[in-house]
Amino acid sequence: MTTISYETFPTERLKNFVQAVFEYQDFSSQHAQTCADVLVSADARGIDSHGVARLSGYVRLIEKGRINPKPQMQFSQNKKAVAQLNADGAIGLVSAPLAMQRAIDITQDLGSGWCGIHHSNHFGIAGYHALMAVQHDFIGIAMTNASPLVSPARGKERMLGTNPIAVAIPAGEEEPFVLDMATSAAANGKLEIAQRHGKNIPEGWVINADGSSSKDPLALKDGGMLLGLGSDTDHGYHKGYGLGAWVDIFSGVLNGGSFGPWAPPFVTFLDPVANQPGQGLGHFVGCWDPAAFRDISEFKSNMDLWIRRFRETTPIDPHRPVLVPGDPERLLEQERIHTGIPIVNVVVNDLEQLGKKLGLQL
Amino acid sequence: MTTISYETFPTERLKNFVQAVFEYQDFSSQHAQTCADVLVSADARGIDSHGVARLSGYVRLIEKGRINPKPQMQFSQNKKAVAQLNADGAIGLVSAPLAMQRAIDITQDLGSGWCGIHHSNHFGIAGYHALMAVQHDFIGIAMTNASPLVSPARGKERMLGTNPIAVAIPAGEEEPFVLDMATSAAANGKLEIAQRHGKNIPEGWVINADGSSSKDPLALKDGGMLLGLGSDTDHGYHKGYGLGAWVDIFSGVLNGGSFGPWAPPFVTFLDPVANQPGQGLGHFVGCWDPAAFRDISEFKSNMDLWIRRFRETTPIDPHRPVLVPGDPERLLEQERIHTGIPIVNVVVNDLEQLGKKLGLQL
Repeated sequence: MTTISYETFPTERLKNFVQAVFEYQDFSSQHAQTCADVLVSADARGIDSHGVARLSGYVRLIEKGRINPKPQMQFSQNKKAVAQLNADGAIGLVSAPLAMQRAIDITQDLGSGWCGIHHSNHFGIAGYHALMAVQHDFIGIAMTNASPLVSPARGKERMLGTNPIAVAIPAGEEEPFVLDMATSAAANGKLEIAQRHGKNIPEGWVINADGSSSKDPLALKDGGMLLGLGSDTDHGYHKGYGLGAWVDIFSGVLNGGSFGPWAPPFVTFLDPVANQPGQGLGHFVGCWDPAAFRDISEFKSNMDLWIRRFRETTPIDPHRPVLVPGDPERLLEQERIHTGIPIVNVVVNDLEQLGKKLGLQL
Repeated sequence: MTTISYETFPTERLKNFVQAVFEYQDFSSQHAQTCADVLVSADARGIDSHGVARLSGYVRLIEKGRINPKPQMQFSQNKKAVAQLNADGAIGLVSAPLAMQRAIDITQDLGSGWCGIHHSNHFGIAGYHALMAVQHDFIGIAMTNASPLVSPARGKERMLGTNPIAVAIPAGEEEPFVLDMATSAAANGKLEIAQRHGKNIPEGWVINADGSSSKDPLALKDGGMLLGLGSDTDHGYHKGYGLGAWVDIFSGVLNGGSFGPWAPPFVTFLDPVANQPGQGLGHFVGCWDPAAFRDISEFKSNMDLWIRRFRETTPIDPHRPVLVPGDPERLLEQERIHTGIPIVNVVVNDLEQLGKKLGLQL
């Protein structure tokens, strides 16, 4: 257990550093800028596990040749509502926004549009990509598979990633509804926080390698597994498993990416297993235009009504009002634009070392 | 606590009875047949809470004028990939298959197609509608909102239904993947089973009216609420809430159906609250053609690989192998085709009374 402290950084300073790091790694300025925007938006929204804390991990993947800094990404399309992007080994931080833009273009025309992505890599927070659609008054959805860490119900083997689903829905006067969730009971980042604080974790987050229950935040590193949302048989673990499986199939199997236990790991000390059934990670993005379903102004006023009514739900504790999905992240983001982003000391050290190695100022 | 016994009925006998009941209620033969097919398929698949146990509930809704036996259902469409069905007060058992057929037709052409439904009623098991797509080698998805019984995270008010999501994905030689899940930690039917057996339920399924935890299967009837998947703060209750909210918005708000606490209740002893923000229940169905994403034979062989590999996951208990979503329901269905469908005595009595009232032989 180390002492925990935070250093606060203005958003722009972090973005500039991240962009410089990717440019140093031979990314185009445009790609490096997109990477910086996606990563720092995770920190701004409080999803620290998917922000700059991942930067040196991405760099290691680039250095090892597992992320292609100069991808020749190519779309193919044989049906009007669906496209497919071969990301040519790109980082998902750039392939997913490109694919989402294509889905948006299709939706402008048809009312709904889809793009699968294969031969890609980790794409950051799913919510970033889903929210792109909201700028066009569309509903956006984004999914990705990821390094296998989660065991299916009844199993004791790492078969699925924390496989997130994000759905972003525009409203009228209210801010958008943004569901952005891992399909595991707890994301890896929560284990790291418990570990830093030297605390136990609740039962139902991880199991040991032998399948027994554990409260140790290190159990995962010791060969254990994360559990799916629901955590155990009585509480619907088969549903969390089913959701994670859905995301894996839509990301990998549907697009020609790898999947299940074969999904390439994020960490470079593990090589992807041999005989991959697909290329790289896969993602799945798409949109619906609410105006294709009903009058858009009626849709928006009913979304406002929905949001306001749910915020007014009678709370169990009057000091903890009911929130709408997306509220916590947006409130943090609005605050951090002004106050800056607190970065925990271990991550600051990591970024400083990376900067020193590459001759870049944090 | 009453004595529990079962009577076993051949599938056809149940279907004929259900069809006769709906025909007696002035449904067309075609609609009555569809209703019988959807309802009895729930019993065959082991989802007893959504099968013939609901029949007299539907009849009461028809008798009260809340379900229209002779609906003039009408499609509208202003974008190529999306249609909208005004169900004119139809039972969802017939409006949802009609809408799914439209989504399938659009998908034949564009690679993906969608249909919203409003002014509808309870649609039975979501999996039935999603599985319609699989007959065309498409992926199907179906959602519906429902009677408000579930409290949002932090709340103590009935704001959401058990709002199911079903996703059905075709494979090659293997049977399809079918995720069909309520977004609550436990469905209402599980409370009824515990109640019949005079047993407590696990913590994390329901809370009392004051928001306190309960193990009493009667807590819901006493003014309590069901909890979302995840059950509590530590185990990701906000995710189950987010999933249920997503389904509510896609079913109600997007299509012009009612939503949230206003969603019309299934039971007839409760009237829909005044000043409804939309018409009836809403549903959301659609499809994707895997052949629009990649070569269909490669997709199918990778789906087979996915299914086989997941079944081979190292199990915690060697006597309880890892299953693929859809396995338990399909295995029951295959068995019950031959052995018949066991119906619990309270439901048999209910059906017999209904038959007597209408002059129909069970």
